[in-house]
Amino acid sequence: MKAIQDLYPDDFSHCYGCGHRNGAGHQLKSFIDGTDVIARFTPAPHHMSVPGFVYGGLLASLVDCHAMATAASSEITDSLAPRFVTAVLHVEYMKPTPLGPELEIRGHVTERSARKAIVEMTVSAGGTVTVRANAVAVRIPKSMES
Amino acid sequence: MKAIQDLYPDDFSHCYGCGHRNGAGHQLKSFIDGTDVIARFTPAPHHMSVPGFVYGGLLASLVDCHAMATAASSEITDSLAPRFVTAVLHVEYMKPTPLGPELEIRGHVTERSARKAIVEMTVSAGGTVTVRANAVAVRIPKSMES
Repeated sequence: MKAIQDLYPDDFSHCYGCGHRNGAGHQLKSFIDGTDVIARFTPAPHHMSVPGFVYGGLLASLVDCHAMATAASSEITDSLAPRFVTAVLHVEYMKPTPLGPELEIRGHVTERSARKAIVEMTVSAGGTVTVRANAVAVRIPKSMES
Repeated sequence: MKAIQDLYPDDFSHCYGCGHRNGAGHQLKSFIDGTDVIARFTPAPHHMSVPGFVYGGLLASLVDCHAMATAASSEITDSLAPRFVTAVLHVEYMKPTPLGPELEIRGHVTERSARKAIVEMTVSAGGTVTVRANAVAVRIPKSMES
């Protein structure tokens, strides 16, 4: 099964967070799992905020890319996923996220229109939810197409 | 004049976004400018979302670190800035941020208590505001001290 991000059109596969054509990036991969979409990611040792804990900006990045993939997940046709971009990102750091364990990012769409979707997400470490987030994903505007 | 992040205690200077002891990180530097706090950052070519535009996760990271520095800015004593951590981060992507120009991140505290501060921010490219954000910054909890 291919990751949703690997089904984006080639022109839109350079994202620092999740593009397979960005060798310097995080290359997040999100997969459909029933009505949810799941990604797993193990932060590098340098992705710290203070020693022992994951940098919040990385967590925001992971949920950002995961939300766009979740928005696209139900609109995949002919092995192509539509590209959404983030209009709003809201992240609540419920508790510090330990640096070391693999993280699970889980999302699902709660509202959808022709042009946009609202996605709710959690990030868990070792089964404990440490982050809750939501995002407004919109279809990529013409002005951002190359 | 030293950046606020360079006044964090050494134990808290490893942040991927702004720690001077994290050689792999973004090393954001925020400076007091009257009642505001300003940082300037030029994204690297690989910090893209789609070609020509800055990755939203990087923008979230920059405002995250800048908010913590802004919260600390009025509490610097003996050349030490207190370390805040992010409880909530809210980012509105008003328009795509062009990749190339130096960005200006500007923040100010709108509410403060003994334990936390609310910070509002903008990100501008070439004088145009592309991102509005706010954050709840809290004093670092004992559980995160090493």
